[in-house]
Amino acid sequence: MNQTEFLDIKDISINDSFWSPIMERVRTKVIPYQWEALNDRVSGAEPSYCMRNFKIAAQMTHPELDYGVDNSLGHGGHVFQDSDLAKWIEAAAHSLVWHPDPELEKNLDSAIEIICGAQQKDGYLNTYYIISGLEKRFTNLKDNHELYCFGHFTEAAIAYYRAAGKRRLLDAMIFYADCIDSLIGPQDNKIRGYPGHEIAEMALLKLFGITKNKKHLDLALYFINQRGQKPLYFEDEIKKHGGSFHWNDSYFQFQYYQAGIPVRDQHIAEGHSVRAVYLYSGMADAARITNDAGLLKACGDLFNNISKKQMYITGSIGQSAYGESFSFDYDLPNDTVYAETCAAIGLAFFAQRMAALQPKGEYGDVLERALYNGIISGMSLDGQSFFYVNPLEVLPEACLKDRRLKHVKTERQKWFGCACCPPNLARIIASLGNYIHSYNENAIYTHLFAGSSSQFLLNGKNLTVKLETQYPRSGMVAVTFAMEGTARFDYGFRVPSWCQKFSVLLNNAPVNYKLRDGFAVIAGEWKNNDLLEINFEMPVTLVEANPNVRQDAGKLALTMGPVVYCLEEADNGNELQKIRLGSAQPAEAKTEFKKDFLGGINVITIQGKKIKNWDTQDLYRPAGLQEKTGQENSGYEDKSLKFIPYYAWANRGPGEMTVWVNK
Amino acid sequence: MNQTEFLDIKDISINDSFWSPIMERVRTKVIPYQWEALNDRVSGAEPSYCMRNFKIAAQMTHPELDYGVDNSLGHGGHVFQDSDLAKWIEAAAHSLVWHPDPELEKNLDSAIEIICGAQQKDGYLNTYYIISGLEKRFTNLKDNHELYCFGHFTEAAIAYYRAAGKRRLLDAMIFYADCIDSLIGPQDNKIRGYPGHEIAEMALLKLFGITKNKKHLDLALYFINQRGQKPLYFEDEIKKHGGSFHWNDSYFQFQYYQAGIPVRDQHIAEGHSVRAVYLYSGMADAARITNDAGLLKACGDLFNNISKKQMYITGSIGQSAYGESFSFDYDLPNDTVYAETCAAIGLAFFAQRMAALQPKGEYGDVLERALYNGIISGMSLDGQSFFYVNPLEVLPEACLKDRRLKHVKTERQKWFGCACCPPNLARIIASLGNYIHSYNENAIYTHLFAGSSSQFLLNGKNLTVKLETQYPRSGMVAVTFAMEGTARFDYGFRVPSWCQKFSVLLNNAPVNYKLRDGFAVIAGEWKNNDLLEINFEMPVTLVEANPNVRQDAGKLALTMGPVVYCLEEADNGNELQKIRLGSAQPAEAKTEFKKDFLGGINVITIQGKKIKNWDTQDLYRPAGLQEKTGQENSGYEDKSLKFIPYYAWANRGPGEMTVWVNK
Repeated sequence: MNQTEFLDIKDISINDSFWSPIMERVRTKVIPYQWEALNDRVSGAEPSYCMRNFKIAAQMTHPELDYGVDNSLGHGGHVFQDSDLAKWIEAAAHSLVWHPDPELEKNLDSAIEIICGAQQKDGYLNTYYIISGLEKRFTNLKDNHELYCFGHFTEAAIAYYRAAGKRRLLDAMIFYADCIDSLIGPQDNKIRGYPGHEIAEMALLKLFGITKNKKHLDLALYFINQRGQKPLYFEDEIKKHGGSFHWNDSYFQFQYYQAGIPVRDQHIAEGHSVRAVYLYSGMADAARITNDAGLLKACGDLFNNISKKQMYITGSIGQSAYGESFSFDYDLPNDTVYAETCAAIGLAFFAQRMAALQPKGEYGDVLERALYNGIISGMSLDGQSFFYVNPLEVLPEACLKDRRLKHVKTERQKWFGCACCPPNLARIIASLGNYIHSYNENAIYTHLFAGSSSQFLLNGKNLTVKLETQYPRSGMVAVTFAMEGTARFDYGFRVPSWCQKFSVLLNNAPVNYKLRDGFAVIAGEWKNNDLLEINFEMPVTLVEANPNVRQDAGKLALTMGPVVYCLEEADNGNELQKIRLGSAQPAEAKTEFKKDFLGGINVITIQGKKIKNWDTQDLYRPAGLQEKTGQENSGYEDKSLKFIPYYAWANRGPGEMTVWVNK
Repeated sequence: MNQTEFLDIKDISINDSFWSPIMERVRTKVIPYQWEALNDRVSGAEPSYCMRNFKIAAQMTHPELDYGVDNSLGHGGHVFQDSDLAKWIEAAAHSLVWHPDPELEKNLDSAIEIICGAQQKDGYLNTYYIISGLEKRFTNLKDNHELYCFGHFTEAAIAYYRAAGKRRLLDAMIFYADCIDSLIGPQDNKIRGYPGHEIAEMALLKLFGITKNKKHLDLALYFINQRGQKPLYFEDEIKKHGGSFHWNDSYFQFQYYQAGIPVRDQHIAEGHSVRAVYLYSGMADAARITNDAGLLKACGDLFNNISKKQMYITGSIGQSAYGESFSFDYDLPNDTVYAETCAAIGLAFFAQRMAALQPKGEYGDVLERALYNGIISGMSLDGQSFFYVNPLEVLPEACLKDRRLKHVKTERQKWFGCACCPPNLARIIASLGNYIHSYNENAIYTHLFAGSSSQFLLNGKNLTVKLETQYPRSGMVAVTFAMEGTARFDYGFRVPSWCQKFSVLLNNAPVNYKLRDGFAVIAGEWKNNDLLEINFEMPVTLVEANPNVRQDAGKLALTMGPVVYCLEEADNGNELQKIRLGSAQPAEAKTEFKKDFLGGINVITIQGKKIKNWDTQDLYRPAGLQEKTGQENSGYEDKSLKFIPYYAWANRGPGEMTVWVNK
């Protein structure tokens, strides 16, 4: 294996025309807004109860504390409410790396004090059970998200430790990890359980990277390896502690939790999509750390299954609202889709980890697809409202009147009772620098193209790699290398799968490269100020889906580079189903960058058609009747079609939208 | 108005190559099978409890009776279980008219004895409340179907009275009607309610036709007129008697029951589709009897809304499984559809009543569409299994794995716990003779074309009208008139909306006719043995849906005459979504009648194409890539497409099926 690791965000500084404004939006709008939300100070939004829960838990644990909250209020929100705070801490911590902010750091420290105040004498730390009754802790791993909250807090603690060097929360989470390890595991006196909602696997492996404590590695591996082993723990848990099995009536049964069969036997992505990709991400981390070929094989199969059979063109996943789950191969409904923002984020986690394991372009292709489309579509352009569900086709009347679309909103919402997506978006955007380059001692691979300056240490040698680009407005990327003297290493850049043709010059002259697994790799000795000029041709393209996808039959989607475009009612009128691309030629499309429109986007105009209304009220008639009777020359009128990037939809009030357009 | 009434089934004898075998199937298979089912004697099927409930209720009412059933078993099945028996009695009674059967009549008489044994001293007759507690009767009109069961039993009583001349059940139902009238109505001391599930309106109006008792007319009109008046009775009922409002979260609210606004203000079909068309049928009857222009206007608007905006090409209605309801205009999903067999039957009731009110071809068009497609698709060719839900597109894997399709079965089932559809099918098929001709003193109108001999009395003159036809295999219909001497009247036959061209000869010579509202009407003096030869050209036709229907965009359906065809996996392999009609020419279709295949059907073969699989595993690629790279001459392979009538699908095990085929 040709393993690499991704650059830490401390070693990269992003200055990108596309991403910097989004990162700033997260920093200046989302993170402050979420802090207010976590403290129940956003009027008109559902209360989070998150900080309140921790204050109550801390007061109960330390009666000397007084946060001025009435303990009798009880726990508020979902059983997994703690995780919202963890995700916010993680996002805020990441932002401190690229934008120090003493005020924010003060808020973080004060929140962490409250959190740590709630920690029990044995390390346990979960407000739901602290407030509602500790005797029940670890009796419903299946549904009550204790280990999920633990995982998120561990990720948060690591992020803050890396950002600010402060160990307060990290130590608390190590203490909690040790508490869990003392109670859950393969040994006879322990609970043989594992997380109902995965993430602790990833988190413990990251923690192991810091602590080097094998206990943390082993606990993560135990969680992964025990999953789906017979007898099924979740079945035993129900028998022992009661409770119902919500998915009894579903075809996926315990695979809702990816816990029906051992993970190495899982080759098709099944069940709750966020849970799934979080597990697969942990499996990929474990495969990397332990060189486990069986796990790697399963990860490869699962990645393939998703990216080749169950992924929307937007990089979104999770076709079914029932169980927020995968459905089956090539089933990709555009209207009833779930496509949770968190699932696309989780897919990005998985893709990044696969890319670290093996520098293949296909991983970066998926990462890029998700980031430029199905992830950032989750956030409004003002950073104050959010989508859970990211449909590819919307008819507002249907969302109101068709119960199967109850989950599909036509406008982003402020803050959800279950607010998983907004802070998850914040943490991935705030740590974007962690997704651009990976490296090992011999090589640097560029997976994403964003204006940035990165510091590498290769074989003891310091290097700076600077990217300059207007991507995805244009496919030109300039890469400048800075170092003392020279250095020998491979530099590989991903050739995006959407790109049919590219050129590359080194210091204005042709350069040899090898195409390997979707990367163009240039081997040799590099010297200071070497300039690589890459030009990915980025024409407007009409894309078709594999004919196995019945929902996209007879339809095309318009893309330009990694960005998927859509038609919105605001630009094209209603009745989008009547629009036909006809003989539209992408080569004749007009692309105009509008700086002040929807945050600065390309608007692509292409000549299409629209079916005229029939001159009768009939529902059905013989095909081609109109032509035969000669009443009209054509059943179509010319129509100029105006496409905008999918991620920018739904920023102008409710209306129809479609990604896939009838041919 | 040019009102007519439909011929009573006693006055028509059907001998038709298409319908007679189906009627025989109902008589020899369905009716006997259902009698066994009602008596819980079908192994492997859910018990009905229906006869058992009546036996318990009769024993409780008359302690001297002993049917050998343990009273403590309680009421079994749904609150509306009684109606299954009523529908069976009605179907069996109809069948006696055209096939006397002393054994069946004996079973009917014995069942009726048991039913009447359960009637209370004040006339009340509903096993659910008799067994479970009479103090609660008429406290949940909204959901507990008392008046629905009353309506069905009244229809059954009338049918049996007409078939056998026996009044036992009729008198019982008149007694029950009087009981209801004494308790429910506009007067101050009465319950101001109306049926939660309509049908009593139709039934009472039919009863009025026999009793001429204005009380029965008035009660029906009260049910119709009070519906949806403020304050809403169902809201009051909840307040007074408790209980929840299941549809609180729906957009249709009390329109689920068509009870949110007064019926004259209803112009769009909404809510539970069976309830809706039963109400509209009652409204049409009331409009006819009372010459109520307001009601007629509402009926016309509702019929138009359904037939022009909410009806499948199969004549099925009810787009949404949620609430088994209408959804909204031009929303006609083919896979998630509900399209209950009972709803198509109810639409046939409504269409027939509209046709009686005004002899317009559009009503017979809908009646015919429903009968030849969405109604008889509900029954297997062996008459022993039934569909509730009649999808127009089926992918078995999706039915298993996509929760939104949970209601869609890939095979007909034996007998449902809620067995509304099978006996409803039986009663409409057994009374088919009631749907063919309507007449008044001046005219006869033929709405359906089925081999038959009918007796009319026009202005005191006896006439026989004989139809001979192979319809729908062919569009030739011979009409022979028999009488003493001559008679002057208008004879009109519907020119089906699918027919682009027809000819008609009288005694082998051209004849003048007027086209009026979808009928060809021949006026004049008729003499014995006059022979009218009609020839509707009936080519194979590819049909398109109105472009407002987004789900059918880019698709065509194949029809021949009134029959809608489909592709089944058994004939065409799987992956039907890859099939393209391309430049398929219906004129070149090969039509072959196969006598021994699927009960004797036309098989239509047409040359189409099938998309080849891509030579990559990609999910998405630039459109037209294959052509550009010249790897293959074409992405398609030729494929001979074999269509069978939609009603005959799913008689060869589970498999894919589609009515709408990609262009």
